[in-house]
Amino acid sequence: MPDLLILNGPNLNLLGTRQPEIYGRETLADVEALCADAAQAFGYGVTCVQSNHEGALIDAIHGAKGTHLGIVLNAGAYTHTSIALRDAIASVELPTVEVHLSNIHAREAFRHHSHIAPVAVGQIAGFGVMSYKLAIEALAAHLKA
Amino acid sequence: MPDLLILNGPNLNLLGTRQPEIYGRETLADVEALCADAAQAFGYGVTCVQSNHEGALIDAIHGAKGTHLGIVLNAGAYTHTSIALRDAIASVELPTVEVHLSNIHAREAFRHHSHIAPVAVGQIAGFGVMSYKLAIEALAAHLKA
Amino acid sequence: MPDLLILNGPNLNLLGTRQPEIYGRETLADVEALCADAAQAFGYGVTCVQSNHEGALIDAIHGAKGTHLGIVLNAGAYTHTSIALRDAIASVELPTVEVHLSNIHAREAFRHHSHIAPVAVGQIAGFGVMSYKLAIEALAAHLKA
Amino acid sequence: MPDLLILNGPNLNLLGTRQPEIYGRETLADVEALCADAAQAFGYGVTCVQSNHEGALIDAIHGAKGTHLGIVLNAGAYTHTSIALRDAIASVELPTVEVHLSNIHAREAFRHHSHIAPVAVGQIAGFGVMSYKLAIEALAAHLKA
Amino acid sequence: MPDLLILNGPNLNLLGTRQPEIYGRETLADVEALCADAAQAFGYGVTCVQSNHEGALIDAIHGAKGTHLGIVLNAGAYTHTSIALRDAIASVELPTVEVHLSNIHAREAFRHHSHIAPVAVGQIAGFGVMSYKLAIEALAAHLKA
Amino acid sequence: MPDLLILNGPNLNLLGTRQPEIYGRETLADVEALCADAAQAFGYGVTCVQSNHEGALIDAIHGAKGTHLGIVLNAGAYTHTSIALRDAIASVELPTVEVHLSNIHAREAFRHHSHIAPVAVGQIAGFGVMSYKLAIEALAAHLKA
Amino acid sequence: MPDLLILNGPNLNLLGTRQPEIYGRETLADVEALCADAAQAFGYGVTCVQSNHEGALIDAIHGAKGTHLGIVLNAGAYTHTSIALRDAIASVELPTVEVHLSNIHAREAFRHHSHIAPVAVGQIAGFGVMSYKLAIEALAAHLKA
Amino acid sequence: MPDLLILNGPNLNLLGTRQPEIYGRETLADVEALCADAAQAFGYGVTCVQSNHEGALIDAIHGAKGTHLGIVLNAGAYTHTSIALRDAIASVELPTVEVHLSNIHAREAFRHHSHIAPVAVGQIAGFGVMSYKLAIEALAAHLKA
Amino acid sequence: MPDLLILNGPNLNLLGTRQPEIYGRETLADVEALCADAAQAFGYGVTCVQSNHEGALIDAIHGAKGTHLGIVLNAGAYTHTSIALRDAIASVELPTVEVHLSNIHAREAFRHHSHIAPVAVGQIAGFGVMSYKLAIEALAAHLKA
Amino acid sequence: MPDLLILNGPNLNLLGTRQPEIYGRETLADVEALCADAAQAFGYGVTCVQSNHEGALIDAIHGAKGTHLGIVLNAGAYTHTSIALRDAIASVELPTVEVHLSNIHAREAFRHHSHIAPVAVGQIAGFGVMSYKLAIEALAAHLKA
Amino acid sequence: MPDLLILNGPNLNLLGTRQPEIYGRETLADVEALCADAAQAFGYGVTCVQSNHEGALIDAIHGAKGTHLGIVLNAGAYTHTSIALRDAIASVELPTVEVHLSNIHAREAFRHHSHIAPVAVGQIAGFGVMSYKLAIEALAAHLKA
Amino acid sequence: MPDLLILNGPNLNLLGTRQPEIYGRETLADVEALCADAAQAFGYGVTCVQSNHEGALIDAIHGAKGTHLGIVLNAGAYTHTSIALRDAIASVELPTVEVHLSNIHAREAFRHHSHIAPVAVGQIAGFGVMSYKLAIEALAAHLKA
Repeated sequence: MPDLLILNGPNLNLLGTRQPEIYGRETLADVEALCADAAQAFGYGVTCVQSNHEGALIDAIHGAKGTHLGIVLNAGAYTHTSIALRDAIASVELPTVEVHLSNIHAREAFRHHSHIAPVAVGQIAGFGVMSYKLAIEALAAHLKA
Repeated sequence: MPDLLILNGPNLNLLGTRQPEIYGRETLADVEALCADAAQAFGYGVTCVQSNHEGALIDAIHGAKGTHLGIVLNAGAYTHTSIALRDAIASVELPTVEVHLSNIHAREAFRHHSHIAPVAVGQIAGFGVMSYKLAIEALAAHLKA
Repeated sequence: MPDLLILNGPNLNLLGTRQPEIYGRETLADVEALCADAAQAFGYGVTCVQSNHEGALIDAIHGAKGTHLGIVLNAGAYTHTSIALRDAIASVELPTVEVHLSNIHAREAFRHHSHIAPVAVGQIAGFGVMSYKLAIEALAAHLKA
Repeated sequence: MPDLLILNGPNLNLLGTRQPEIYGRETLADVEALCADAAQAFGYGVTCVQSNHEGALIDAIHGAKGTHLGIVLNAGAYTHTSIALRDAIASVELPTVEVHLSNIHAREAFRHHSHIAPVAVGQIAGFGVMSYKLAIEALAAHLKA
Repeated sequence: MPDLLILNGPNLNLLGTRQPEIYGRETLADVEALCADAAQAFGYGVTCVQSNHEGALIDAIHGAKGTHLGIVLNAGAYTHTSIALRDAIASVELPTVEVHLSNIHAREAFRHHSHIAPVAVGQIAGFGVMSYKLAIEALAAHLKA
Repeated sequence: MPDLLILNGPNLNLLGTRQPEIYGRETLADVEALCADAAQAFGYGVTCVQSNHEGALIDAIHGAKGTHLGIVLNAGAYTHTSIALRDAIASVELPTVEVHLSNIHAREAFRHHSHIAPVAVGQIAGFGVMSYKLAIEALAAHLKA
Repeated sequence: MPDLLILNGPNLNLLGTRQPEIYGRETLADVEALCADAAQAFGYGVTCVQSNHEGALIDAIHGAKGTHLGIVLNAGAYTHTSIALRDAIASVELPTVEVHLSNIHAREAFRHHSHIAPVAVGQIAGFGVMSYKLAIEALAAHLKA
Repeated sequence: MPDLLILNGPNLNLLGTRQPEIYGRETLADVEALCADAAQAFGYGVTCVQSNHEGALIDAIHGAKGTHLGIVLNAGAYTHTSIALRDAIASVELPTVEVHLSNIHAREAFRHHSHIAPVAVGQIAGFGVMSYKLAIEALAAHLKA
Repeated sequence: MPDLLILNGPNLNLLGTRQPEIYGRETLADVEALCADAAQAFGYGVTCVQSNHEGALIDAIHGAKGTHLGIVLNAGAYTHTSIALRDAIASVELPTVEVHLSNIHAREAFRHHSHIAPVAVGQIAGFGVMSYKLAIEALAAHLKA
Repeated sequence: MPDLLILNGPNLNLLGTRQPEIYGRETLADVEALCADAAQAFGYGVTCVQSNHEGALIDAIHGAKGTHLGIVLNAGAYTHTSIALRDAIASVELPTVEVHLSNIHAREAFRHHSHIAPVAVGQIAGFGVMSYKLAIEALAAHLKA
Repeated sequence: MPDLLILNGPNLNLLGTRQPEIYGRETLADVEALCADAAQAFGYGVTCVQSNHEGALIDAIHGAKGTHLGIVLNAGAYTHTSIALRDAIASVELPTVEVHLSNIHAREAFRHHSHIAPVAVGQIAGFGVMSYKLAIEALAAHLKA
Repeated sequence: MPDLLILNGPNLNLLGTRQPEIYGRETLADVEALCADAAQAFGYGVTCVQSNHEGALIDAIHGAKGTHLGIVLNAGAYTHTSIALRDAIASVELPTVEVHLSNIHAREAFRHHSHIAPVAVGQIAGFGVMSYKLAIEALAAHLKA
């Protein structure tokens, strides 16, 4: 079964307990299960990786080349600071959908800019865990097109 | 049947012929039909409005209060210049999902900032007409929650 | 009876229901009645116009030339974005008092700058509907001087 | 006879009476007559449209597609604030010459930037009504080339 | 009789002789008499203080707590440079109306920003000595509400 | 025969071979011949000077005083960096029309600002060698007025 | 007994009543007593000065030369606006510890920059009156080293 | 014995040999021993962690939840670049005192801004290893309050 | 004998001991004696005032009107922060020469901007106490012209 | 044989397949072999390290102290974001030559600034793998001098 | 007789006729005669050079080394744009006094910054031709010290 | 023998005596001899030109077309201010290697930006005269590829 990489960045391992008024009460396990279900509906499997290490996220993106068809990426705070992640995505040339639980454009100014966006297919932000379901749907549609 | 407002801003009437390498080849009628179908799947009807006039878009938002449950808004270029549209949404307090055909964060710098985002539930950008389908799905989920 | 133009911009038709914690609970009709009373005390009549359309506001300013003695202008969000309104006021050369219900200088940074101010007699902001009464008083004094 | 669109934006209906020390003493009718004469010399007719409404200007640009060969655009103050007008011109892909009565680069800093310029053939500014004659000449030459 | 503090900052002692084309020909004594009259109409007395010393203005604001009901403050040039004055007003929590003789938003850019505004009820600027009369009226209305 | 100075700045000697996709295929000799023809139609002769030296351009402007009626100036890249050229034009008080082959406002941001514009009658940019013809026409009209 | 200068700037005389949610409920007398105790533990006496006057604070710093061993300075809002205070400290060359009750780096952006810091030994901010105790401890350690 | 986390970031393992004129001659072991002593005086134990890896620091902060009462954090250069560390602290909601050996506000401009400060109790900077002792004292006082 | 005001601002009372590598070893008394001598050569007496208080400097400028012919002003650090001093000079309309011991344009960026300059005849900076002698010479020449 | 550290940062493991139009077709192994050859010509051996982890790069720099004579560093995207890497180099005080395959100053603006440069001997950018050969030559010359 | 170089930059050859309301009515010959007189009073001769060519000014500065004792430099508009002139002065290490006829700090913002100032002894601006006399006096005093 | 142009800009004629702590003690003649040797090793001759005149440098670049194979350019201070030099290089389309003696990225901020870089093959900075040898090597490699 063709496979998607669901890649979560720093602090997302704390989902459910971390500032639930912003990030909601579902855990990372919940998110990953939701992703598996959503992907299955389009005939895809998922591999889920979470790391607080920028380097580990880069390694995972590199590893996706040849083994995955596309990436759903929530880079967390690295979204705003990591040019290296941007370059990693550009390097592997896999379609990547950028996803955020919160509406980053409605929060502090330093969260408005994304280094990921210029190399992503598109961005989905603000719908809580639903953002992931939409991202998989968007990625599936992109892969079909 | 409860109703959603699908509101499209300036130049979106030209969809299909306008810079198709950026905005795709579907027409506005195609988008509106797609929205109707997508909304119906969640039990909603849609009212579709397009205008090149900032004031007409504000009027439409005002008119949505009491007659619609939520708004899917592609404000086009007004996204980046209209505080009045932002205030209109804040005034009617209807859940609004911001949608863009292209990935505005991957284009010219002046398209990165959205006046709409701070008063929207979330933002979906970059997936062509698919963006609208995702927006309706997101809005439906938001209305249920 | 000589006449003043009371010109209200975008979203001010929703006064009373729009974010009353910021804009108060009086309606636009209340404001316009208050203006009529305040003007009458100085021997002036008023014509009241509200529009959400930038172009309609410009048309109204143009129309004021020769028919009104001065303008009380609450340009709403267009205050911060419309050079065209500024140019309209400069074009008709009617004394204009800029008025705001809320203290725009105490709100978001993007509400601090006014394109209207450089061509206005003065600015009154932050006193709710009372701002209009003060503006008429200020305009009357200006017309007498 | 092939036709050019002469499109004038906000406050230009007041030409002749509006700050004549900046904009000169000719009226809009004078300008439009001058344009008709200038175009005729190159074998073109003209359609003249003026509006204070950004949306109406966008509509006129859209309407020019298929009916006109090119556009002479004085967007007035919208030059500096309207991305929607820029997008309209890009959408219809008609050669457009940007024109200004005054030398906008010699005035206030906020008049130096043009949203229109990046999608225009070129810009002519500072020669009063003569700017229009030059613009038509430039557009005619562009259409021939 | 309940009492208002009329507080004037640097250079306002020179009123009447200081750049009269900007600040008018009334003296500070005229302004203070006008304030007394205006306040009396609402049943208030006034205490008038003027100082060129930032510290003395802060002391006066501190002293107003418990002895005055509100403050009319023309902080002059300190408006643009003094965070300490802002903090003083926030500290005593007395309603304060910011007033300026000239329209500061129509003058040099460094006069557009006010450190006072974020802690004031509202701002009145541009009406010469009339600004004070309006400010007292606004303060009286605020105290009643 | 009264005389105009046609002054060309750095790199314009390479016209025809220099990035023809931007600057066109006509040589400087072609441009100067075109200028002579265009000027003759208005009864003017031309003196043509080109230099890559900022100082030589300043010298030429100084020398124009008393010998020429006006200047057509394409300052090339010095447009964006030379305050000394601006001051030279202001010093001789000859009417100067600024001209550019390419639409500088549609190119890199550092080409948008002109030090020449504030002391020029007007600016013409984007029409290739046609820009010069239009500039002479504009200058002739200015001299007549 | 060798002596330290405890210098408090504008509005700190209101401690205890001034926005206690930010600055706490201890009074200035409490702070000064706490400082005396803390200093005594290291064998130092203290002189405590508070003023709302920038000039008086400068005078006090000047006066400290030769009579005190070091300074604990809470310059209040002058921290962010006074280069003169900075120069005063640099002039007397006494070791100075900068102290703030609130965490200025977690508040409004205009409170993040300190003119004092570049001439201070170090900065302590955010621990309420405890900040003073730590500052004295730090100053004592610095004097010993 | 309740426990504090002493967390040191990049390059702090080199303490004692690294630019001793800025950072002093004590080693990291010295600092950690000093922290243990200082904490013991308040009845706390300490766990000391140092890493040059941003991800490892985030992991350590996550791990502190439930096992430690508070954090003393010297994030080194990550202070200025890591939003992810800021988010980690906000996520675990443990009181955190930010500490720096040098006075970062007196050094290069890029060291003045702290991403940590907005989520920290307070900041202590500039007192060498003494900064840690003060931080523990501040944290102990905060925990008691 | 007609009289000049020699006005020195904050920290200049410390001249001779304050950072002599920047400000030299002459005392304020030396400077004032030098000024008296220099003025006498042109037939003027001097009144010398120094204060660390911004308000006192403003008072002194006000007091100069009618009693002095011109002002030599070294506003020290207030040069860079005080709009009130600028307004004071503009208010009394006495010719004022701005003077600095050090070359402020060769020091930290925050010392490059002068609020005094726009209302001064001219500026002399960088020649130590010699700057005062030159300033008096310049003022004398200005008064004669 | 004395030894140089060849340190490559994020995404450089993908050399040869990563955007070869920018970075060329040689692999990292090719680069490292080229470095070994180039160093040997000057009598040096090389140790080659590549990591996508900022922390691992810092560790490697720390480890170089005492075991290597100098460093050739291509920090990849961390060049633009990592102050920690800068501090690491400053800490070990080994001569470091900064190297880039592409001409970073000719690419996106965010690639123009280098945090590494202020602590490096020099920078070589834009010559593909040749950049490494030149860097080793430069480092060898520096070590000899 | 030891010699000073009086170096005048672009457009200063037009003195007397160039915008006399700004630059006065004395000619360059007048200025040079005044300089000769002023220098003679201190026992110096002068060499006077004027050029509109940046390179010629640099050549003149280079040539001054070994033949002149110091430089009085009015770099005209190159003051604001020429780093090369700054480097020339730094290269020859001759004491240089920067001089301006007008008060550059009171004019357009682009004239406020001087590239010359950081390598000059000091700056004198605003006193017309008197500025040169003062500059020579300042340079003479500097050479004696 | 094919030929390279070695082009040196302002102040480089002073090499050896000019701030040797920054630029080294070799003279321009030394540099040019070194270049000749380095080029010969690759089978190239060199033509060496130095000028302090921006225009002369542009002329030299123009003259290189057809007579030289490539350019080694040290534009000195013009690197940071000359768009005209950039355009000259773009016009002749000869491969150009940008070279600097000092590490411009480690010096004042105004030396970090290069107008030359976007049209150069690459940049070498910081290795003293060795920079030229490396540049020739890089250019030779580029010409071969």
